[in-house]
Amino acid sequence: MMYITRRERFTAAHRLYRPEWSDEKNTEVFGGCANPNWHGHNYEIFVTVKGEVNEELGYVMNLKDLSKILKEHVISKMDHRNLNLDVDFLKDVMTSTENVAIKIWEQIEGPIAELGIQLHCVKIAETENNYVEYYGKQ
Amino acid sequence: MMYITRRERFTAAHRLYRPEWSDEKNTEVFGGCANPNWHGHNYEIFVTVKGEVNEELGYVMNLKDLSKILKEHVISKMDHRNLNLDVDFLKDVMTSTENVAIKIWEQIEGPIAELGIQLHCVKIAETENNYVEYYGKQ
Amino acid sequence: MMYITRRERFTAAHRLYRPEWSDEKNTEVFGGCANPNWHGHNYEIFVTVKGEVNEELGYVMNLKDLSKILKEHVISKMDHRNLNLDVDFLKDVMTSTENVAIKIWEQIEGPIAELGIQLHCVKIAETENNYVEYYGKQ
Amino acid sequence: MMYITRRERFTAAHRLYRPEWSDEKNTEVFGGCANPNWHGHNYEIFVTVKGEVNEELGYVMNLKDLSKILKEHVISKMDHRNLNLDVDFLKDVMTSTENVAIKIWEQIEGPIAELGIQLHCVKIAETENNYVEYYGKQ
Amino acid sequence: MMYITRRERFTAAHRLYRPEWSDEKNTEVFGGCANPNWHGHNYEIFVTVKGEVNEELGYVMNLKDLSKILKEHVISKMDHRNLNLDVDFLKDVMTSTENVAIKIWEQIEGPIAELGIQLHCVKIAETENNYVEYYGKQ
Amino acid sequence: MMYITRRERFTAAHRLYRPEWSDEKNTEVFGGCANPNWHGHNYEIFVTVKGEVNEELGYVMNLKDLSKILKEHVISKMDHRNLNLDVDFLKDVMTSTENVAIKIWEQIEGPIAELGIQLHCVKIAETENNYVEYYGKQ
Repeated sequence: MMYITRRERFTAAHRLYRPEWSDEKNTEVFGGCANPNWHGHNYEIFVTVKGEVNEELGYVMNLKDLSKILKEHVISKMDHRNLNLDVDFLKDVMTSTENVAIKIWEQIEGPIAELGIQLHCVKIAETENNYVEYYGKQ
Repeated sequence: MMYITRRERFTAAHRLYRPEWSDEKNTEVFGGCANPNWHGHNYEIFVTVKGEVNEELGYVMNLKDLSKILKEHVISKMDHRNLNLDVDFLKDVMTSTENVAIKIWEQIEGPIAELGIQLHCVKIAETENNYVEYYGKQ
Repeated sequence: MMYITRRERFTAAHRLYRPEWSDEKNTEVFGGCANPNWHGHNYEIFVTVKGEVNEELGYVMNLKDLSKILKEHVISKMDHRNLNLDVDFLKDVMTSTENVAIKIWEQIEGPIAELGIQLHCVKIAETENNYVEYYGKQ
Repeated sequence: MMYITRRERFTAAHRLYRPEWSDEKNTEVFGGCANPNWHGHNYEIFVTVKGEVNEELGYVMNLKDLSKILKEHVISKMDHRNLNLDVDFLKDVMTSTENVAIKIWEQIEGPIAELGIQLHCVKIAETENNYVEYYGKQ
Repeated sequence: MMYITRRERFTAAHRLYRPEWSDEKNTEVFGGCANPNWHGHNYEIFVTVKGEVNEELGYVMNLKDLSKILKEHVISKMDHRNLNLDVDFLKDVMTSTENVAIKIWEQIEGPIAELGIQLHCVKIAETENNYVEYYGKQ
Repeated sequence: MMYITRRERFTAAHRLYRPEWSDEKNTEVFGGCANPNWHGHNYEIFVTVKGEVNEELGYVMNLKDLSKILKEHVISKMDHRNLNLDVDFLKDVMTSTENVAIKIWEQIEGPIAELGIQLHCVKIAETENNYVEYYGKQ
């Protein structure tokens, strides 16, 4: 079993808050991340797939294909966007890094499976000090 | 002459656009950076000062003092904010990295000069691929 | 199951040696790391916790809480210190990266568990070329 | 159980292609990586071993020993070389990162086992955007 | 005066040698870099331009334009290539990092000048430990 | 004129203090850096030399020669050492990063000049947030 990982990047604005809460409560719980005027990040996403190495081709999957899936289903929808307002698959989702990882997983699991490859992990780094890793429902 | 540099970081939303232009023209000129719903970055700021090494203390200036000035005049005003909406010293400023560097210079040149130290360079990295350096009016 | 990681940093002096051995034997076994006058590192610590995503809050745990635990139980005791002489929880411990990871685990496992969260991994990078990962007694 | 990792680096030329295919077909499948005149990389290799911490010595294994094994069996044979032409253990191997990882595993598993240590993972980063991880036949 | 920098990357094979020298002499002078079967690198190129900030647009030049020039005149010709064999503007050039920097400068100085912008520096990092900076004939 | 830079690394313990001051005063001025039991860093040193490109050899100087000078005059004396106690050329020197840069300059300027090359800059990064640059007496 081999694991291969592709890094992609996108830059986006977002905000953490619950709409039914007051600004005060949102700030108390989420700190600066609740700023009503948004803040943003250079997100790094690391997508890991696993599989056997194809004997003829020498790889688990062509990283160009993985990169194409990520660009079509993730980067083109999230880059230079507002995660709360602009991204169809994040509608009504609290845009925490955890939830963003889950939703990205749901976006790409199917297209990767269609190529006969198994998605293993979606890792998202929000800053150089914080990242999350999601391995799917297990 | 010795140069010392302190790195600080802040995360912010922003948008590039001219208010008198249509959305179409803004997108044509500024691309995804013009997104009306904002996008954002993890900004890195590198502030370089220059001076003689103080013989008794061994340094040009105490980096704690430099860090304090940056936190008071820059980071506390920009971190987790919207550069276009929330930052007093960026009012009516196109929030390009170039302009942000100039305005940060103007914010910190005085407080650093009060300590008898000369500001040399404000460098801002917007992404891992792009940065600007400003050396003041010369 | 979601895994989230927080990076913190501290700078410290230390030395690898067994007090009952001669300087020669210590140097033979531990090389330059046995220098009686100490050496030091910029340590990076990556603490990973795991758990379910809280539906209301969108996260496994508030990273501010994790950071606070790390600052109180680890960074405030280790930063700008001598690991062999100054750190209560490293008394009589060979300050190898492995042992430091185990002792940090013991320091933070309880406070993290009190918040209902499970500690998953303590990773410590001593240099850009060396790191250890500890997953607890299993 | 503790995991320790050593990073080493080597720089090499290589090419992805199947000799029985035409240049056109090789380019169609492998893109620029099929260039008959070669291209190259600064490879980073991260080797992880696992084991119990030796109580007397404080470590799983002396990283100098791990580094020596890597230099003797891997780096000295691959650094400043052509992976397709110059490396005995890559003879007739498609030099994909996946296959390189498997072959490096085979090179070092024995020498590490002789020290009573268990090889856990060979990770190779080909660029800042791509890496593979191999955990052996399981 | 403002300086802005764009990073681009390419991966390539190359070799340092003088054709009129024996293999022995080439190895004596250039070490492993003289390997007749080539080696390679992930090159990073940092191109810095300088100019006044355009008041209407807020920038010295549109980084998309700079990136387009670099892709057309540099990256598309060098990425996944052999610097000694495949690159027209490196014909009969010793492909040291210094010479590569000079030749890249010559490639892009004109197209950048056509936009009314002044090229300031071409920096090339060959490995994480080595880089060169060229500021043009002065 | 071309500038080339070599990075080397060393790990060391040190302490900032004036021996004629009380511990309290040292702590007041130098903070945690005054800890009597020392702390330490992974230092990165970037040495830049400048010169014309040798037409026959294609480089300003052989980086192997630069690396050898740095290893002989700097790294072998500083790595895994205590800067205050173990380094002959730092005797009675306040081991601030500024002073360390000046003293390293004095160590290597001569040997580099003997090769007909001009030392341009010694840059030392003490942490990922702090660095100094020294260009010699001008």
